[in-house]
Amino acid sequence: MAAETRRDGFLGGRLQLAQPVAGYRAGADAVMLAAACPAVAGESVLELGCGAGAALLCLGTRVPGLELTGLELQDDYAALARANATANGLAASILTGDLGRMPAELRARSFDHVIANPPYFQSGTIAPDAGRGTARHEDAPLSLWIGTALRRLRPGGWLALIHRAERLGAILTVLDGQAGEITILPVSARSGRAAGRVIVLARKGARAPLRLLYPFIMHEKPSHGADGEDLTAAAHAVLREAAALNLRDR
Amino acid sequence: MAAETRRDGFLGGRLQLAQPVAGYRAGADAVMLAAACPAVAGESVLELGCGAGAALLCLGTRVPGLELTGLELQDDYAALARANATANGLAASILTGDLGRMPAELRARSFDHVIANPPYFQSGTIAPDAGRGTARHEDAPLSLWIGTALRRLRPGGWLALIHRAERLGAILTVLDGQAGEITILPVSARSGRAAGRVIVLARKGARAPLRLLYPFIMHEKPSHGADGEDLTAAAHAVLREAAALNLRDR
Repeated sequence: MAAETRRDGFLGGRLQLAQPVAGYRAGADAVMLAAACPAVAGESVLELGCGAGAALLCLGTRVPGLELTGLELQDDYAALARANATANGLAASILTGDLGRMPAELRARSFDHVIANPPYFQSGTIAPDAGRGTARHEDAPLSLWIGTALRRLRPGGWLALIHRAERLGAILTVLDGQAGEITILPVSARSGRAAGRVIVLARKGARAPLRLLYPFIMHEKPSHGADGEDLTAAAHAVLREAAALNLRDR
Repeated sequence: MAAETRRDGFLGGRLQLAQPVAGYRAGADAVMLAAACPAVAGESVLELGCGAGAALLCLGTRVPGLELTGLELQDDYAALARANATANGLAASILTGDLGRMPAELRARSFDHVIANPPYFQSGTIAPDAGRGTARHEDAPLSLWIGTALRRLRPGGWLALIHRAERLGAILTVLDGQAGEITILPVSARSGRAAGRVIVLARKGARAPLRLLYPFIMHEKPSHGADGEDLTAAAHAVLREAAALNLRDR
């Protein structure tokens, strides 16, 4: 990758990732997504749009013994993800390709888990550089992300998504009839605030009823101050100590 | 109505409603629904499936000067709703009729607000008596309730629903493309618990993004005790003091 990168620590330093200085850099959302995936040793996980590998490699760090596969549209991010896996001693197969034109070796397979953090912004809202632009804009519609994920899951396999809370309606509409046992974890920056993100866990072909969980709160203080990090104990456990979110037990 | 009724107080006694002893009796859900409707004096409100009138008359008590209309399938509940309106000094037009075969005088009209608390259980799960059975079973699918409500709203009019949280996916799927500016208020029995109910406010034809609010908590104590009511201050304000929920300002 030609662009300048910097090293960011994840999971309390357990994972060190090179990410582009100027482009899209994964953060708390990727870690939360990885914490929401209920994969256990021996299972296979596919991440759609894995970028430099943050979510996939956080998951691999938290749960040893997974078979990790990532799909990434942009060559330079895919190369970074491969280098990041190797540098952290994790085995991961990173493929370059488009959601809409999935590589044949992925089309031939199914996975126990699919995870995705689809781009958050509609095309045209923000595009400071090309890499960041592709990673953050919804050039592929959410229905393509979710439809592709469901097609790659085995029956009974689990899809975990994180997205802006305002897309919850679109997410549930696409899942309708294709997945059940849906668990929604609202993520609020602070107690009392509307959700900024939603984590949605759904099981392919299942019919158990939806559950709307009590929100996960990221920060303790009522407003953002200048005096350093104020993560809640629960957020600290996930972001710094590699705790699982255990959505199905909440 | 032949069946025995009893008088239940709502809104700290401001409203006294005769409800059947053995049949379906409205409670906190009806009051919460009424508190969620953003109607102001001079506007028109239609309640679909008004039963003995609890939600419609709570709303009329909280907001003087509304034009209140209720539709109820069962003659005996409709008669109770009329008697309850009169006994509480409220003007309300209560029509007997089926959602699927709306009376012509309603089909000819549109309303500023529609409210509904659709039956919670699928047919066959609970049916201790006929009245309770019809009120609590989803003989008409949720899509009919919501579709009928949207057809009766003026463009820009507001739909307020309360339902079991597990039906959130179905609600958002039906609203998709027909209503926007959706605000979801999860209602949890206690802090930390998954939502038991959701209140959904949506605006016909609007496109503003969905918001998933922080939950409304009904009870203070971590578990149900025998030592009387333990409403949170917020729940007390709504249930006993006729406060509004003001979803759009949260």
